[in-house]
Amino acid sequence: MIDSPIGIFDSGMGGLTVMRALAQRLPNERFLYLGDTARLPYGTKSGETVKRYALQAAHALMERGVKLLVVACNTASVSLPALQEALAPLPVIGVIEPGARAALAVSPSGPIAVIATEGTVKGGAYVRAIHEHGQAPVVQQACPLFVAMAEEGLTEGPIAEAVAHHYLDPLMVMVPRPRVLVLGCTHFPVLKNIIARVAGADIALVDSAATTAEAVALLLDERGLARSGKSREPHHFLATDAPDHFARVGEIFFGSPIDPGSVELIDLQN
Amino acid sequence: MIDSPIGIFDSGMGGLTVMRALAQRLPNERFLYLGDTARLPYGTKSGETVKRYALQAAHALMERGVKLLVVACNTASVSLPALQEALAPLPVIGVIEPGARAALAVSPSGPIAVIATEGTVKGGAYVRAIHEHGQAPVVQQACPLFVAMAEEGLTEGPIAEAVAHHYLDPLMVMVPRPRVLVLGCTHFPVLKNIIARVAGADIALVDSAATTAEAVALLLDERGLARSGKSREPHHFLATDAPDHFARVGEIFFGSPIDPGSVELIDLQN
Repeated sequence: MIDSPIGIFDSGMGGLTVMRALAQRLPNERFLYLGDTARLPYGTKSGETVKRYALQAAHALMERGVKLLVVACNTASVSLPALQEALAPLPVIGVIEPGARAALAVSPSGPIAVIATEGTVKGGAYVRAIHEHGQAPVVQQACPLFVAMAEEGLTEGPIAEAVAHHYLDPLMVMVPRPRVLVLGCTHFPVLKNIIARVAGADIALVDSAATTAEAVALLLDERGLARSGKSREPHHFLATDAPDHFARVGEIFFGSPIDPGSVELIDLQN
Repeated sequence: MIDSPIGIFDSGMGGLTVMRALAQRLPNERFLYLGDTARLPYGTKSGETVKRYALQAAHALMERGVKLLVVACNTASVSLPALQEALAPLPVIGVIEPGARAALAVSPSGPIAVIATEGTVKGGAYVRAIHEHGQAPVVQQACPLFVAMAEEGLTEGPIAEAVAHHYLDPLMVMVPRPRVLVLGCTHFPVLKNIIARVAGADIALVDSAATTAEAVALLLDERGLARSGKSREPHHFLATDAPDHFARVGEIFFGSPIDPGSVELIDLQN
């Protein structure tokens, strides 16, 4: 069990920003990543459909013997309780709880601004998670165009600038002004520079990747599931569509090359 | 058979621009529309996956007894030959052939500019269709952000302006300058104003909705399938996710209200 991989799943490639933080924090571990690229994005779809897709993906990873599952997709993390119940006793960690805690650590009395997909905003999971641990007021903004921009590599320039102002200006004129902005979608870290510039120097950005990696490290230790020696097997990737495209575009999010031979095409529908 | 509805399918709501043109041209007919909203968009996915999804959608409409099928999605129209073969003898019409003919009618010697999704551009179906009927040179440009903008209703203003320049400027500096621009995605007609302004007054926009409606009218007459009296039954809509959202956002594309009670949730995966 200790030698089994850690499963990570996301609707597409955005979750690779979380896998990057996990691989840095836990260099001995081996990871098995699943991107549901045939049905992405999840962020514009109903909670019911996202839950159904997330359960299929989680079962596929469980069947391949992962020792722990990281739901590296904010929209799917809204269904975390259902996933934990369905997969018990497999430990399942989402990205929302760690992000909420990190935001409260920076700005305990708030207000806390959260930018995310439509599905995450409607699901309200950040508001619930923040109010479970504190009383900071929360303001949310759905930023659907950010996802398309990140996937197209449009991370700088006049379009990125105009779109960032469109979404962030209404948050930044609030009184009192938010001191922390949660990047509540795994696509957004690649837009960090433009978001930071438009939001202003006095605001802290919280990207849940690093705090999620910390939460996973803690849980592995608690359960005695951490590897002591480095795994010799390479990481492996599963995609439900276009594995070549996954390897190529995935690099934007993963930050290092992905061997196309390590990306396997699978079908989640049966 | 004459009284059966005409089936229309699209990955989501964009095909409602085609249904609008069909309902205007063929006021006696009843339509059954299917939007695969649980798996949209098709434009960023592989040809193989889009073909599989399109076949499932087409079979669902055939099982409900449509007399003719309109593939109101450019990306799925790339697989038209496979759909026609699988559904024979049901007549199946796509949107690419009518769009290609309309472009050649405006500018027989070209060059013809085509803007579309990544899937449509890569599939090359416009280039093939235009070169089947003429010799005009064709230049293509994928415009993935246009889809997200249309769905968010961002059809005017600084973002729409910046994105339109980003995609269209490289096409418009070509020598000789294109005289016709094909809107090769059913989402794009809602961005017609900004596209026309940025492309310039000397360029004709071709939207395949009207020419597709004409092709359908002709085929109904040829096969003796046209209704002579007006159908008393209302149009019906099928969606694979979020029927309420379909009814609400669908109005942007359909141009008239959609009764939420007429939108039925279905599952295409089994």
